[in-house]
Amino acid sequence: MNSVPSTLAAANRFERGAAVLRAVSGTEHPEALDSLADIAPDLARLTVEFAYGDINARPGPTLPQRQLATVAALAALGNAMPQLRFHIDGALNVGCAPGEIVEVLIHVSLYAGFPAALNALTVAREAFRARPDIDFTPTTVSAATDRFDRGRTTLSAVDGHAGEQVIAALADIAPDLGRYIIEFGFGDIYSRPGLDLRSRELATVAMCTALGTAAPQLKVHLHGLLNVGGTRAEAIEVIMQMAVYAGFPAALNGITAARAVFAERDERGGGGRE
Amino acid sequence: MNSVPSTLAAANRFERGAAVLRAVSGTEHPEALDSLADIAPDLARLTVEFAYGDINARPGPTLPQRQLATVAALAALGNAMPQLRFHIDGALNVGCAPGEIVEVLIHVSLYAGFPAALNALTVAREAFRARPDIDFTPTTVSAATDRFDRGRTTLSAVDGHAGEQVIAALADIAPDLGRYIIEFGFGDIYSRPGLDLRSRELATVAMCTALGTAAPQLKVHLHGLLNVGGTRAEAIEVIMQMAVYAGFPAALNGITAARAVFAERDERGGGGRE
Amino acid sequence: MNSVPSTLAAANRFERGAAVLRAVSGTEHPEALDSLADIAPDLARLTVEFAYGDINARPGPTLPQRQLATVAALAALGNAMPQLRFHIDGALNVGCAPGEIVEVLIHVSLYAGFPAALNALTVAREAFRARPDIDFTPTTVSAATDRFDRGRTTLSAVDGHAGEQVIAALADIAPDLGRYIIEFGFGDIYSRPGLDLRSRELATVAMCTALGTAAPQLKVHLHGLLNVGGTRAEAIEVIMQMAVYAGFPAALNGITAARAVFAERDERGGGGRE
Repeated sequence: MNSVPSTLAAANRFERGAAVLRAVSGTEHPEALDSLADIAPDLARLTVEFAYGDINARPGPTLPQRQLATVAALAALGNAMPQLRFHIDGALNVGCAPGEIVEVLIHVSLYAGFPAALNALTVAREAFRARPDIDFTPTTVSAATDRFDRGRTTLSAVDGHAGEQVIAALADIAPDLGRYIIEFGFGDIYSRPGLDLRSRELATVAMCTALGTAAPQLKVHLHGLLNVGGTRAEAIEVIMQMAVYAGFPAALNGITAARAVFAERDERGGGGRE
Repeated sequence: MNSVPSTLAAANRFERGAAVLRAVSGTEHPEALDSLADIAPDLARLTVEFAYGDINARPGPTLPQRQLATVAALAALGNAMPQLRFHIDGALNVGCAPGEIVEVLIHVSLYAGFPAALNALTVAREAFRARPDIDFTPTTVSAATDRFDRGRTTLSAVDGHAGEQVIAALADIAPDLGRYIIEFGFGDIYSRPGLDLRSRELATVAMCTALGTAAPQLKVHLHGLLNVGGTRAEAIEVIMQMAVYAGFPAALNGITAARAVFAERDERGGGGRE
Repeated sequence: MNSVPSTLAAANRFERGAAVLRAVSGTEHPEALDSLADIAPDLARLTVEFAYGDINARPGPTLPQRQLATVAALAALGNAMPQLRFHIDGALNVGCAPGEIVEVLIHVSLYAGFPAALNALTVAREAFRARPDIDFTPTTVSAATDRFDRGRTTLSAVDGHAGEQVIAALADIAPDLGRYIIEFGFGDIYSRPGLDLRSRELATVAMCTALGTAAPQLKVHLHGLLNVGGTRAEAIEVIMQMAVYAGFPAALNGITAARAVFAERDERGGGGRE
């Protein structure tokens, strides 16, 4: 098991945060530094110090991985469009490909519904159009004929036993919902190219943590993240990051889910490599 | 107990979905088919196939009933106004009366608060005004003097024993909240004409499932739906439908609530007619 | 223990509500009375009667305290901007200082994330600018060097043993999250001037109740409210108020948390003075 990243130096939080914010905003003098001057200048300082200097500067997930997690969470929440735009721009600024961002937003449909995905894609379109350096052609995949088999294979790789249990538990009450999870969720969405399974699970952990309404699914997908090569430290980092975007209760409840999942894996004896 | 609707044919999902989408959008060539062409064309296909071909085409609730459930859920979520507008238009296109839509949105105030209801009514006003074929005059009911008695009678019809328990449990800590639920919730809102109790409970199940923050209330109102003549199959259908509008975790957690409610009713021996 | 406020007279609900609405809206003829005339006139009446005549007219928290709780909740929900604007104006109309409103919105960042706080501040800025009578200069506090010690002292005053337990429970899985809660949550935010601890905890109870995703934190901060001089009756009032802004399920689940917290305190024998 990787250790949780060590504590960053308490000094220089503002400078460290400002450097990260410059990278994300793609400008030497980010607007965020001044935008609250007339109403809450301290919150601008606290944003730089805490959101960027404490959290986004932490080791573990890279800045592009962190931006994709933030984009997924804000898209799922659906109530913070200015920040979603800022972080889609931010993802592009730190090197995410437009296609990765689009795949994350398609993935959002599974966990927060189609309206959340569609509204976020509207924001992404505006972000892409505002950048002459972006030359984006969407990937298309044709409709598959083996959706069920492909989905079953992917579900097994991601969720293993826990995923099988979810499907089995639906058999007596809503079997078609189980079939849709396999066919649509895993056969159509998870199996798409352009975003690897580890990135999909990082986005899923971010979304389920931020939404705060999906505790059982958060546990299934913490297992999923670890099953596809993610680490416990990564999981903790993404959950902690959600304190910035959805508040401390969301992060604390996410940690509670992680503690339970880690204990389950320790009991099974399979956690040694995480 | 009605059986859960059988699986739709896996083939022709796109054609079946496109037909439903044409009915909902009221046009031969729905804009949704092209609107994502530049950024995520596959998501347009997946929307047609899954949201319309798999889910909204299912047997059980009629298309107007499904539209009202979607309108209730999107109004309660409050963060997907373009889709709320689309589905208010859709409800009109499949034959819902404007008055029914307004009643559903007034009903939303109980489960998601007045702001959610008021903002959704603003969207409904725009939708109605854009249609010269709509000639809508709102129904008004005068303030009742027997709100408590009327509310108590309606509460008893809808929630039976479970409703009485909710009120009784408030007696020692917030008795006035219990009184408001009877007087305002059931005396003022549930007793209004223009939307029958079964439709109110379908909307309530849709909202509580989509919000994901109202598990105890979802159980009370699954009982309520079954108490006023709804079926188990209807309940499952509306919960599954929420996978489209609020994501799979919302639907899965709704199914968990339904499983518990069905088991309670089986134990009591009263579920034979559902 | 203060008794729960007694039942208001059932008669004159409309007149009582209209008087409160006039105070909040700052006008003799509030727009809300007519704004639904064309689509749902009864909901306007029900808003006056229930939201203002039943709830906001209740004894206990003052109208300014109630407005700040509503502002906090709507900012945290992040999906009802017209109502957030109305109630920021309302807070000013009933005598809240602009600085108090800003402090509440900075406080929101802890419980609903920075995007929620930032978007609410954008609304506050518009509200302040629209009023020539408002001459607001923001307070700034310089970055502290003793954030940890200050935070630890404030955490101890607010959350006592429960707060220590939250931090201790993080030690083996996400110790830095515990440190951030102390340093940023309590050292930076809770220790700011301009809003006393009791008002911060009232806002926190309002937010956690309205969000509906923070049950463990709602319990910790119900203890917190009572620890810093708030009363059980105040806690119940703020929770009931959320029925208006987030729906009855949110209020009912908040009452469930309050019942558990009151029982814990009764067992400890410390509740006699609340």
